[in-house]
Amino acid sequence: MADILNKSAFDIPDGVIYLDGNSLGPLPRAVPLRVQQMLTDEWGKLLIGGWNKASWMDQPMRVGNMVARIIGAAEGSVVMGDTLSIKVFQAVSSALKLRSDRRVILSDTGNFPSDLYMVEGLVKLLDQGYELRTVAPEEVMQAIGDDVAVVMLTEVDYRTGRKHDMRTVTQQAQAAGAIMVWDLAHSAGAVPVDMTGSNAEFAVGCTYKYLNGGPGAPGFIYVRPDLADAVQPALAGWLGHRQPFDFELNYAPGSGIERMRVGTPPVIQLTALETAMELWQDVDMDRLRAASITLQEQFITEIERDVPQLTLASPRDPTMRGSQVSWQFDHGYAAMQAVIDRGVIGDFRAPDIMRFGFTPLYIDGGDVTAAVKVISDVMNNDLWNEDKYKVKSRVT
Amino acid sequence: MADILNKSAFDIPDGVIYLDGNSLGPLPRAVPLRVQQMLTDEWGKLLIGGWNKASWMDQPMRVGNMVARIIGAAEGSVVMGDTLSIKVFQAVSSALKLRSDRRVILSDTGNFPSDLYMVEGLVKLLDQGYELRTVAPEEVMQAIGDDVAVVMLTEVDYRTGRKHDMRTVTQQAQAAGAIMVWDLAHSAGAVPVDMTGSNAEFAVGCTYKYLNGGPGAPGFIYVRPDLADAVQPALAGWLGHRQPFDFELNYAPGSGIERMRVGTPPVIQLTALETAMELWQDVDMDRLRAASITLQEQFITEIERDVPQLTLASPRDPTMRGSQVSWQFDHGYAAMQAVIDRGVIGDFRAPDIMRFGFTPLYIDGGDVTAAVKVISDVMNNDLWNEDKYKVKSRVT
Repeated sequence: MADILNKSAFDIPDGVIYLDGNSLGPLPRAVPLRVQQMLTDEWGKLLIGGWNKASWMDQPMRVGNMVARIIGAAEGSVVMGDTLSIKVFQAVSSALKLRSDRRVILSDTGNFPSDLYMVEGLVKLLDQGYELRTVAPEEVMQAIGDDVAVVMLTEVDYRTGRKHDMRTVTQQAQAAGAIMVWDLAHSAGAVPVDMTGSNAEFAVGCTYKYLNGGPGAPGFIYVRPDLADAVQPALAGWLGHRQPFDFELNYAPGSGIERMRVGTPPVIQLTALETAMELWQDVDMDRLRAASITLQEQFITEIERDVPQLTLASPRDPTMRGSQVSWQFDHGYAAMQAVIDRGVIGDFRAPDIMRFGFTPLYIDGGDVTAAVKVISDVMNNDLWNEDKYKVKSRVT
Repeated sequence: MADILNKSAFDIPDGVIYLDGNSLGPLPRAVPLRVQQMLTDEWGKLLIGGWNKASWMDQPMRVGNMVARIIGAAEGSVVMGDTLSIKVFQAVSSALKLRSDRRVILSDTGNFPSDLYMVEGLVKLLDQGYELRTVAPEEVMQAIGDDVAVVMLTEVDYRTGRKHDMRTVTQQAQAAGAIMVWDLAHSAGAVPVDMTGSNAEFAVGCTYKYLNGGPGAPGFIYVRPDLADAVQPALAGWLGHRQPFDFELNYAPGSGIERMRVGTPPVIQLTALETAMELWQDVDMDRLRAASITLQEQFITEIERDVPQLTLASPRDPTMRGSQVSWQFDHGYAAMQAVIDRGVIGDFRAPDIMRFGFTPLYIDGGDVTAAVKVISDVMNNDLWNEDKYKVKSRVT
């Protein structure tokens, strides 16, 4: 596991055990200096010339290729930009045009709400009888009927960590004539993903969780290479144009995945992300997955031994989970605040879920044991039962 | 003018006269340190807690209020996020829903292509007989017929600097029953804007030009306050939800302009922008406008005196221009490269426009004279007529 654990590459405060890399990854040590250089040497000195001379214009594709490697996608099939929510809109709107005789977008109640909201917004915008149909995660397979145009799912449930089988669901969707859109928010950098092997048409994701790109790091979109020149981008921005600097009055989509670019890319965010992605260049995702499961199994075993008040809310079978372990507890919000106060950072998801992410790049077995000790102390001594932990703040 | 000129606040390389702040503003000196602090002290130390403890979550509204002041909009009527292209899509899609009995979006051929592309994409997506109708800038007023749902214009033409009269055009649009959408890309920080007084329903803009927010700085959107609680956001992202952290399955729009937020905001970019915006807090836009016109008039007078090869492509009446002066020259691309090589940075816009922006925060009359001397030298000695200036690069 020595080549997976890379703690010294991250700047984690003393006394903190960070089990929330599934919300916002920690700061890679190389990022501040690299961003500083970008600001002073590129923006400061090259000014507008940075777009060419510092290759800012190529950055969305260059970083996209770094992400492609992590999700088992071909070079040139992923591009960065905007946010995950915008990328969901791009993927689903394009997917609907590929299956224009059907009206149902199928998703599940374990999907991240923003994905559902974006489709709800799209359905209202189109105002042509489209329907967002949402079923329980366990019912997705049997709900894929021949009226379904698009199946849109998040592979790993943000709340429970429950993991769909990408290949099987995609096969079922395609057998029913539907287009498949995967959200990899809790997959990229967390579990091995084989985009090419899955045969799915679209995937989207974010980069501020397991990939450690920083707060507000851009989203990504994948389009299956054989379709990339055929899809119609609903968000037809100038940087997705074939010749943006010819300033033609009419849109002509760029080649392949480039058409999924929209506006001017966020160079500062992309520079932080690109630096963070360099930590992934030698990571073997199968070894990372094995390390993650070892940590999760240790955590479950120790919590169940020491903290019987918590009920496992994630699948017990590790192959059915992503890289997080969630627990149900009626006073979960207060308990998580008390745990965080003692240096173990996880997070709470309404209504009663305590969520802990496992990131083998900077978490090891000693961290797990130390975290369990804190959680056990909080739970067995009712340390959460103080007034100060009961006021729910806006962001949890 | 002493309280307008603020050269020492910007890090401009020695020997450079930067007349391209209308493409990408230069680096404010305070930005690198502030971004460094955000990375190390906020992201690094607060980790996920930064959303609350460092007020990242409020940043899009907080910075929006700084932009609001510059464009004459009320507090709480502007929010930051995404890119200008995305904001165009948001504004026009919302505007169409307010006038759903009509099918024409009217714009002009001087609009920035991405605005036209985004509407073209929206029209194709909707597939309900919508039409993007584009006329010459001079013909907009008479083209506003009673079939027009939305008039979408950029106030200041990116190529020529020609300036629409916001109040008059808006009155005409509204008299014809249309909804008005203004793009302020070349207005915000360039000319006084009176959003409230214009009565326009929507405005959008970018912040990497005159506002100096850095490459890829986020866009902004304004919705007239009396409409903000009525508009339907087509891009219905979780951070525009009334209670994003309740993780409800159905979308319920947030209060007012907050519903125009979409995904997770780009905190690093917003931190750079917020720092840049601090330079605007004491700027009187009328005095800035007067300084800009003085610089432009000096530039036109000196170029016409010394460089007869160039033909003015901007309106001669300064009240009809934004904060740039453009010249037509058949070999404009080569000439601009030769000028840039000698330290005067302007830019080229196809097919034959040499464009110079005037930004009184860091450009003074001495810079104008020095720039004219370089341009005159290049033009009168045919220094542009070298092979190395003839190959057109991707980004110009």
